[in-house]
Amino acid sequence: MIIDYDFDNISNPYKHFNVSELGEQLGAIQRLVKSLDIPVLIIVDGWESSGKGFIIKDLIRELDPRSFKVSDFENSSEEEKARPFLWRFWRKLPKRGNISIFDRSFYYKTMNHLEINPTELKQNVEDFISMEKKLLDDDMIIVKFFLHEREKTQRKRIDQLKNDKFRSFFVTHRDIDQNSNYKSYLKHFDSVLKLSDLPFSGWNVVSTEDLEAASKYVIGTTIQKINSEINRINEKNKKLTDDKTAEKLETTPLDFVDLNISLGENEYKEKIKKLQDEAKNVAYELYNRRIPCVLVFEGMDAAGKGGAIKRLTSLIDPRIYEVIPIAAPDETEKQYHYLWRFIRNMPAKGRMTIFDRSWYGRVLVERIEGLASVTEWTRAYGEINNMEKQLGNFGTLVLKFFLYIDKDEQLQRFQHREENADKLYKITEEDWRNREKWDSYIDAMNEMLVRTNTTYAPWIVISGQDKKYARVKVLQEFIKYGKEITEK
Amino acid sequence: MIIDYDFDNISNPYKHFNVSELGEQLGAIQRLVKSLDIPVLIIVDGWESSGKGFIIKDLIRELDPRSFKVSDFENSSEEEKARPFLWRFWRKLPKRGNISIFDRSFYYKTMNHLEINPTELKQNVEDFISMEKKLLDDDMIIVKFFLHEREKTQRKRIDQLKNDKFRSFFVTHRDIDQNSNYKSYLKHFDSVLKLSDLPFSGWNVVSTEDLEAASKYVIGTTIQKINSEINRINEKNKKLTDDKTAEKLETTPLDFVDLNISLGENEYKEKIKKLQDEAKNVAYELYNRRIPCVLVFEGMDAAGKGGAIKRLTSLIDPRIYEVIPIAAPDETEKQYHYLWRFIRNMPAKGRMTIFDRSWYGRVLVERIEGLASVTEWTRAYGEINNMEKQLGNFGTLVLKFFLYIDKDEQLQRFQHREENADKLYKITEEDWRNREKWDSYIDAMNEMLVRTNTTYAPWIVISGQDKKYARVKVLQEFIKYGKEITEK
Repeated sequence: MIIDYDFDNISNPYKHFNVSELGEQLGAIQRLVKSLDIPVLIIVDGWESSGKGFIIKDLIRELDPRSFKVSDFENSSEEEKARPFLWRFWRKLPKRGNISIFDRSFYYKTMNHLEINPTELKQNVEDFISMEKKLLDDDMIIVKFFLHEREKTQRKRIDQLKNDKFRSFFVTHRDIDQNSNYKSYLKHFDSVLKLSDLPFSGWNVVSTEDLEAASKYVIGTTIQKINSEINRINEKNKKLTDDKTAEKLETTPLDFVDLNISLGENEYKEKIKKLQDEAKNVAYELYNRRIPCVLVFEGMDAAGKGGAIKRLTSLIDPRIYEVIPIAAPDETEKQYHYLWRFIRNMPAKGRMTIFDRSWYGRVLVERIEGLASVTEWTRAYGEINNMEKQLGNFGTLVLKFFLYIDKDEQLQRFQHREENADKLYKITEEDWRNREKWDSYIDAMNEMLVRTNTTYAPWIVISGQDKKYARVKVLQEFIKYGKEITEK
Repeated sequence: MIIDYDFDNISNPYKHFNVSELGEQLGAIQRLVKSLDIPVLIIVDGWESSGKGFIIKDLIRELDPRSFKVSDFENSSEEEKARPFLWRFWRKLPKRGNISIFDRSFYYKTMNHLEINPTELKQNVEDFISMEKKLLDDDMIIVKFFLHEREKTQRKRIDQLKNDKFRSFFVTHRDIDQNSNYKSYLKHFDSVLKLSDLPFSGWNVVSTEDLEAASKYVIGTTIQKINSEINRINEKNKKLTDDKTAEKLETTPLDFVDLNISLGENEYKEKIKKLQDEAKNVAYELYNRRIPCVLVFEGMDAAGKGGAIKRLTSLIDPRIYEVIPIAAPDETEKQYHYLWRFIRNMPAKGRMTIFDRSWYGRVLVERIEGLASVTEWTRAYGEINNMEKQLGNFGTLVLKFFLYIDKDEQLQRFQHREENADKLYKITEEDWRNREKWDSYIDAMNEMLVRTNTTYAPWIVISGQDKKYARVKVLQEFIKYGKEITEK
């Protein structure tokens, strides 16, 4: 890639244009993606002191500042440091119709880490690729640039910057270090670029020996790339008439749930207090060890999720956990990838986030109501597993509780809710409508349980038929897994 | 207040209830405020080690965890430290229908600052009161508790906590310091409480000598207070049939704008580059001195706001500024006070935020379209001035540009936009509808300019009739004010 880049022999198809001409064309493209509601991510990575600031300024010169944003990731905040590495990038993604320009990107840390071992390198790049893949599948356009320069050019630029009254703060030890070890970095960058040169988000290596020429190349390439990607996305979505049919699964884990287990009143009373107290201590232990914890609650309507969550959190200090009830996405949330609203709510180290319903809506309600196409929800299993795996790699305890009740039990609970004024708020028209689709939900739930039950984020299926049993069981499982991870 | 509190003679109207009974009643109240869409803020402040954790846990025991949140403010993040003190509390406010519990509050810093001088004390409390006032006017219910305990009880509790395996991390130097200087703190707290004992958000002092009794008192008082506040709000809103008529202003600053000023093409070209370069340096200087900067752009549709912003930012490093285009609030934003969505976007130290339209929508479009009642928009002038003053006190450079064009010029620009394919995106039905209300807008704009032109956040009214003149003038004014503040 860059290791054999020939600085003396560069072809630049945009050299005869001038920068403002190209800029205006890009302005037109910006309005086009706005009208098509397509998000665009432009990554400008490369050597330190290779002119990223200069290029980015040219890139945005003719853009409408109301629908683009430039983000840099040089310094990460405490908030960011306390969460998985990719979290900070998810936060800064463009919404539909907007352009985000990343000044450096998720690649920077791996690129700056010269002594990284090959396994870690591969693992990191795989995480980045899988993020790009998710976004590409969601019809984001990604344009990646690597700014390349000669060793002596870099040295000259570092010296210039140091002497600039207003901008000397831009020079860091990394600039110096790269220049002193130029050859080693060259080799290292080359391997990172090779590993992450994806079909629809390949790297464009740009010589910045001549900055103006580089600007032209970057703007021109961006225009060309966005245009061709718009065509590709259109073609793809035309073909996608969604004639794809999902194969039906043979495995039906819900059939194996014993719905007859129950607990007597006395046994319940005896157990619950003790377990709540233990759960509290586990939560403190997680807090003290700075282990983040994600608990997901799924299940039928009226399966007892709310009650189980209340019993679980009852003695835990409310300053260390948060319960997030999930409903349909709002206007703002719809502007992003469906995982965005969940990822931005992931807990910091030592915190616990409980999702009352979750991203599994993608393969449940969105599947059944046709809000996601077959292609989209079948793809979601892998996307979800990958997201949970990254949480796991970060050290997060991820547990997913599924509360199961049968159709008769649900009917009784619905009726009970309608008959009791103080429970009436819990039952809506929608609950009755969902109930009509009971069998489709069972199919979708079975498939979900099979496809997303992993070692790093296991499903814990619990009969909710008897509320007392379910509440005790949730506590027991939380304590079991919690102890396992804190005693490691 | 607390200085003459008689621990031996406490009346507790809730002592004959038990905690879970009261808790269930509070649960019913939670559902009531949810159905009424009323936000509730419960502040639990008081001595260190006075049992806040215990009380809050009792308070939430029977609450639905999906619509309450507990926040503590013990440790502030970098993000928070880089912004005005009250910002962190605005972020954690309850949305409509939800309950937020603050474990300590905006009072804590002033309370912990024993050596504070009287002027600063008064100034701080005034800021807190004005925040509460804004929220109360927006029909938030605020319940404030101060947990009070004897010197020796505090000492005992600190010792106990220190020896608790799981919770010793809760003890800080502040606990120790308060206990060693109990009498001085008592006096100091007393004056803070007296200054902030507002009619609709008065302090409830609670003895926590007996924690269980204290819990009962807190839950009972919360129930009683929320009930009475709901009644008060209902009464208030019944009376508010909005027969209030706004008096018409005599002063009409827009009449004094000279719309004939213009700049020749050559003069423009000569000036603009130099000014852009200077503006860039001013922006860097603000960045280096960590001075935050807020620029507001208002004006008629098609007055040239977008073009002026683009010329202003053209050479400034996009990593240090952000342009925020303001449209109607989305679903989430509507759940909060109208200032919430602006306050959360205020710049950190050294950053610049440019609002393309702003909170002035409250007294412009919301006034004219009847989206805010007369009471609400007349109140807004004071609320806005107060918010901007707090920014000013924090050291923020706040400049508000108003671009003025006349009705004929607007018509020409609208027609030009409709005739040009690449500008068509800029013109909508709504623009034409607003135009029909031209005279009402002129009245509203005049009143806004008169009532919110302050030394700490001045309006700079510029003729937008000639785009070149306006762009140059915006740059000149930004440079002038920017230099003034950086050279101080």
